[in-house]
Amino acid sequence: MKTSLDRNRRHFLLTSAGGAAAAGLAGFAPAAFAQGKPLPPVAAWKDIDRLIVHSANGIETKRSAFGDGVLTDNDILFLRNNLGAPSASIMANPDAWSVEFDGVTGPRSLSVGELKTMGIETVAMVLQCSGNGRGFFAHKASGSQWKVGAAGCSMWTGVPVKTVVAALGGVRQGMRYMTSTGGETIPPGIEEKSVQVERSVPWNMMERALLVWELNGETLPLAHGGPLRVIIPGYYGVNNVKYVKRLAFTADETKAKIQTSGYRVRGIGVKGAPNQPSMWEMNLKSFVTHPAGEGPVRAGLVQIHGVAFSGSSAVKGVDVSVDGGGNWLPAAFSGPLLGPYAWRRFVLPVRLRAGSYAITSRAVAYDGTVQPELRVENERGYTHSGWRDHAVKVTVA
Amino acid sequence: MKTSLDRNRRHFLLTSAGGAAAAGLAGFAPAAFAQGKPLPPVAAWKDIDRLIVHSANGIETKRSAFGDGVLTDNDILFLRNNLGAPSASIMANPDAWSVEFDGVTGPRSLSVGELKTMGIETVAMVLQCSGNGRGFFAHKASGSQWKVGAAGCSMWTGVPVKTVVAALGGVRQGMRYMTSTGGETIPPGIEEKSVQVERSVPWNMMERALLVWELNGETLPLAHGGPLRVIIPGYYGVNNVKYVKRLAFTADETKAKIQTSGYRVRGIGVKGAPNQPSMWEMNLKSFVTHPAGEGPVRAGLVQIHGVAFSGSSAVKGVDVSVDGGGNWLPAAFSGPLLGPYAWRRFVLPVRLRAGSYAITSRAVAYDGTVQPELRVENERGYTHSGWRDHAVKVTVA
Repeated sequence: MKTSLDRNRRHFLLTSAGGAAAAGLAGFAPAAFAQGKPLPPVAAWKDIDRLIVHSANGIETKRSAFGDGVLTDNDILFLRNNLGAPSASIMANPDAWSVEFDGVTGPRSLSVGELKTMGIETVAMVLQCSGNGRGFFAHKASGSQWKVGAAGCSMWTGVPVKTVVAALGGVRQGMRYMTSTGGETIPPGIEEKSVQVERSVPWNMMERALLVWELNGETLPLAHGGPLRVIIPGYYGVNNVKYVKRLAFTADETKAKIQTSGYRVRGIGVKGAPNQPSMWEMNLKSFVTHPAGEGPVRAGLVQIHGVAFSGSSAVKGVDVSVDGGGNWLPAAFSGPLLGPYAWRRFVLPVRLRAGSYAITSRAVAYDGTVQPELRVENERGYTHSGWRDHAVKVTVA
Repeated sequence: MKTSLDRNRRHFLLTSAGGAAAAGLAGFAPAAFAQGKPLPPVAAWKDIDRLIVHSANGIETKRSAFGDGVLTDNDILFLRNNLGAPSASIMANPDAWSVEFDGVTGPRSLSVGELKTMGIETVAMVLQCSGNGRGFFAHKASGSQWKVGAAGCSMWTGVPVKTVVAALGGVRQGMRYMTSTGGETIPPGIEEKSVQVERSVPWNMMERALLVWELNGETLPLAHGGPLRVIIPGYYGVNNVKYVKRLAFTADETKAKIQTSGYRVRGIGVKGAPNQPSMWEMNLKSFVTHPAGEGPVRAGLVQIHGVAFSGSSAVKGVDVSVDGGGNWLPAAFSGPLLGPYAWRRFVLPVRLRAGSYAITSRAVAYDGTVQPELRVENERGYTHSGWRDHAVKVTVA
């Protein structure tokens, strides 16, 4: 379970009138003084006690921090930036941010303020880094050593891309990709395409894509791509371009390195190339979030719970094993279905005697896909959904 | 729309490392220095810029603060306490809080830690004060003068009451009510039943009730009833007893004043009595959240959106009027259905020319109920769902 003092700790920091709230909490150090790497300024408002800070551009949610509910709060949602965020000044007037639309019959720029007049839609979506689970690979794949927490399920609100495209006369003929360009500042002296965050996805993804300005009821924070981010529900995080400044329908994929050789699945030691699979649609995955393996569990009845999701087909069911995959029992879902791109919470009550357990989960999708046992070895440690590595070692006492 | 700087403002308060985030924001005063009544210590962490503080025990969400999404964030969820919250020390170890179960075959106490081993369920639920809309009554009904914002839709997680009851052998025969007692401290010298928060609801509400410890993925804050609160989805807020210390199945309703004469619907000038309708099931209601009437709107295409909910029957549709009820147009839903006790977001795009408008909404439920035009006059200003009073006056320029 996550620490129950977080909210109260923050009382200290948020107000000098916190005297009464503080009464029972003397002796607890404020989160800002916690050990480990500090949060970067852009994410300084996050709840560091429930996060693992890999670097200024890579922050993971602890397995124990997901709590017992369905949604992932902004305060603990993971963070991964390929380039540093733009200046916070762009959040002074988010409605003024503009995005250029191209590859449509009537290309033009539209501000966020204008987009807000064009349509509103909310989608519950799992955002997951392509490299989530990289920390389980044995060959030390380069990149943040995420375990399970480079993923979260949140509510995203904005305008459907298809609504904007319709207003601009539709997609021009021959365009096969939807290409989004991020508004990060390119460091001087560096060739733009070598670092620019620009990603292409199949053009028909516009049917489900949104241009979003709100996350879980809050103005989309700069750290997560505010003022405006494109989201492609069901696709890996990298395609959800932050600070989007251009959205174009294009005949070909972008020549940006992040697309041509980055985020490509290939064998260990192989260089990235355009003919390798791109990190687009997420695969079927589940993992246990409680017990989280952070301390012993009391013998007796235990609710084992976790999350299951897929980019392509809804999750039909989840089995749970407490003996590392020897035996499986079917779990139940423990919360509402929030739509095709959200994760489902599963729960299985079990009676556990004192001992050691390897607790893991295995999801099945409606299209018949079964979550695999093993990871697919690959150079950059992408797409890890193997249930064996995702097992939690738990001591019951 | 809510102010988009809130998240950034809070960076200042949450960290001394906020330099970079601060760069573009110089000159904005931190929320703690905003005008008006201050937040009480128990809710000092809330986002005061998006709230109306009526009193230390009554805090309302601004109509403009609900944003464009479906869920209401903890930072802006309304607050209403009948008694002050217990000491914050009870949050030092929430799992140690215990609740006594009675009126079951095997009465006993259970700690929150034990309840967490018994079951997990998440429900999206509208929490609404019985007096929401009281500020629209003409006779100055006593109590907080709420407009629309003593309501919010959030995700609540805990154990189903029916699961606990089953584990305790079931409800004893002849019990017609489920009676929950709050753990507030009774001020010395005051007769307990005259102020104690103890509410009875029909016993079969146990089928949908939960004992919750988590709100929107965060440990349930003290302000909202942590460590443990009972929720009765579909029922008015007062029945969702905070800091619940006893849950009993009883033959009769509690004799606490809050039940016998409080929260009873009666004519103006009439005293409360047990034979009057109790504030149990919520009625069908909707209101517009954008435009919020806080400033002029630009002529052209405008997305009118808001929320619709009911305690008894799912919302089938919502009509919107921009001329105070003269003409109506059907709105669409703009987000996922989160279950029977959540609210639905509706949206209607309209082209508005310069002028003055009275924008309102009218919901219809699957059981045929239609949201009424007028309030039902009553002593305490309860149950207001009349669409006329809930209209927003908007200037389009």
